[in-house]
Amino acid sequence: MSTKVLFAGSPGSWPVYKNTLSESFDRTGLDVDLMAETSDPTAVEYIVYAPNGLVKDFTPFTKLKAVLSTWAGVESFQNNATLTAPLARMVDRGLSEGMREWVLAHTMRYHMGIDLHILGQDGIWRNDIVPPLARNRTVGILGLGELGLGAARVLQEVGFRVCGWSRRQKSEPRIECFSGSDGLVETLKQSEIVVLLLPLTSATENTLNAEMLAHLPKGAFILNPGRGPLIDDEALLAALDSGHVAHATLDVFRIEPLPVDHAYWAHPNVTVTPHIASDTRADTASDTIAENVRRGEAGLPFLHLVDRKEDY
Amino acid sequence: MSTKVLFAGSPGSWPVYKNTLSESFDRTGLDVDLMAETSDPTAVEYIVYAPNGLVKDFTPFTKLKAVLSTWAGVESFQNNATLTAPLARMVDRGLSEGMREWVLAHTMRYHMGIDLHILGQDGIWRNDIVPPLARNRTVGILGLGELGLGAARVLQEVGFRVCGWSRRQKSEPRIECFSGSDGLVETLKQSEIVVLLLPLTSATENTLNAEMLAHLPKGAFILNPGRGPLIDDEALLAALDSGHVAHATLDVFRIEPLPVDHAYWAHPNVTVTPHIASDTRADTASDTIAENVRRGEAGLPFLHLVDRKEDY
Repeated sequence: MSTKVLFAGSPGSWPVYKNTLSESFDRTGLDVDLMAETSDPTAVEYIVYAPNGLVKDFTPFTKLKAVLSTWAGVESFQNNATLTAPLARMVDRGLSEGMREWVLAHTMRYHMGIDLHILGQDGIWRNDIVPPLARNRTVGILGLGELGLGAARVLQEVGFRVCGWSRRQKSEPRIECFSGSDGLVETLKQSEIVVLLLPLTSATENTLNAEMLAHLPKGAFILNPGRGPLIDDEALLAALDSGHVAHATLDVFRIEPLPVDHAYWAHPNVTVTPHIASDTRADTASDTIAENVRRGEAGLPFLHLVDRKEDY
Repeated sequence: MSTKVLFAGSPGSWPVYKNTLSESFDRTGLDVDLMAETSDPTAVEYIVYAPNGLVKDFTPFTKLKAVLSTWAGVESFQNNATLTAPLARMVDRGLSEGMREWVLAHTMRYHMGIDLHILGQDGIWRNDIVPPLARNRTVGILGLGELGLGAARVLQEVGFRVCGWSRRQKSEPRIECFSGSDGLVETLKQSEIVVLLLPLTSATENTLNAEMLAHLPKGAFILNPGRGPLIDDEALLAALDSGHVAHATLDVFRIEPLPVDHAYWAHPNVTVTPHIASDTRADTASDTIAENVRRGEAGLPFLHLVDRKEDY
């Protein structure tokens, strides 16, 4: 009998996912009945899910084996009390690669001082400012999960000195790893460029507050492709105004789209990018989903399960 | 008896090189008499040289064993008929690293469309433009010497598809190598971003002329950290005006500093950087020079010798 999979992803994404999921299920050798709506919720075994999709109440799905999110972050449905089935978040190869490239691009931009050239085509030949080599520059990564570690590794490979901070102590070749609140201070003190890739939990909200921002070296650069609430916005604006933080590139915000009158849009030392640092790619994401259905049907443990006790 | 080395590098660089060269000679175990001027040119065995330094006529230096340039490029003293001693150009680890970083930074900038964000902070949330992943983007490198190969490798490592062209056919893992005039056309046809790292010779001048520019895919990006005359400036300006070339970032020019009234400064789709893509670093360059003196004294072949018959 075919496996019943209900697609309840982001509105508008069904035409794309219909094809990519069918191909991924075929490649996995699974016999799947893939649908975008159902009159019999009790028959559904897996839900491909996005928080902005159709399913809000999981109660009618009594035979659910797993909920497979197409989103990497899980904070927006942590508190859905009806979601009791195993919940897997998306870890997409395309998403990891896209994130790695966004972080590398903006780190190199800050490292080389590219904005000065883009904005300063005034005919003056300023060849006396030579940036340091990457090996003389330290980048700090907050968060060493799939995405943070991917970014840390590529930065280390291209030559930067990289230190990283995570809740639980990690160990990674050629990356100086810290944990705990002393470790956070130590990481920030060294970070000429700091990248936020922490998950959003009650413990990580406002990680970069006024006190922590003060630990950064003067003239530091901030990249936030993680989650908006990791930063205390008022504290960051104050640090930018004082010059303690030289520039910030922010891809995520407490309210998205970022309101047109928000101070970040107008600040000369902030670049807003519109939550594009990484995007789930339907083709690669469908492979991840198919692999988890295969595992469920074969009685194997699911990949990327969310531990709801730990908030992540 | 100590080895006589005359420093005739770029004006103003003696105070720095005096220290770094002394340290490098010490580390190599050489007994060197290092001087910035001499009353007895016939005693000088090695000259540390830059084309803009004090020595123009090599005739008085009758016992010269080698001329060791602090510059990577050699075209500016190819035609000095008095320079008959073995001539080594500079291959500096710091210079290679700096070049690699400049190329990586501007390639990532074009790849991610960063200028649109830096210049377009207008409050409009344009999250529907997702750049392709690096593995779906082809970068072409013209010139696969020390610098070109270094750039090609780092771009390949961070995920790009890389093809490269050189005068003599090369072979390099995971880089598609071309040579010859058909190979140049083939490379250009594939290059969404093209990087010029050829030496300047009579054969490479105007490599990017109108005919070759037309082979690039529409909307291509050009990076020139190599030598100004590799590009036919009028042809490039025409290709930029027509939109066939989307944008160019140029670090080197036929006349430097680039005159304030040059069309490149004013063109909206050109970024001028002031010959900073790479700079010889005195500390690492001094190691290269000391190694060549050691080789000369030990009767070993010099590194990075210029073959003057081949123009490079």
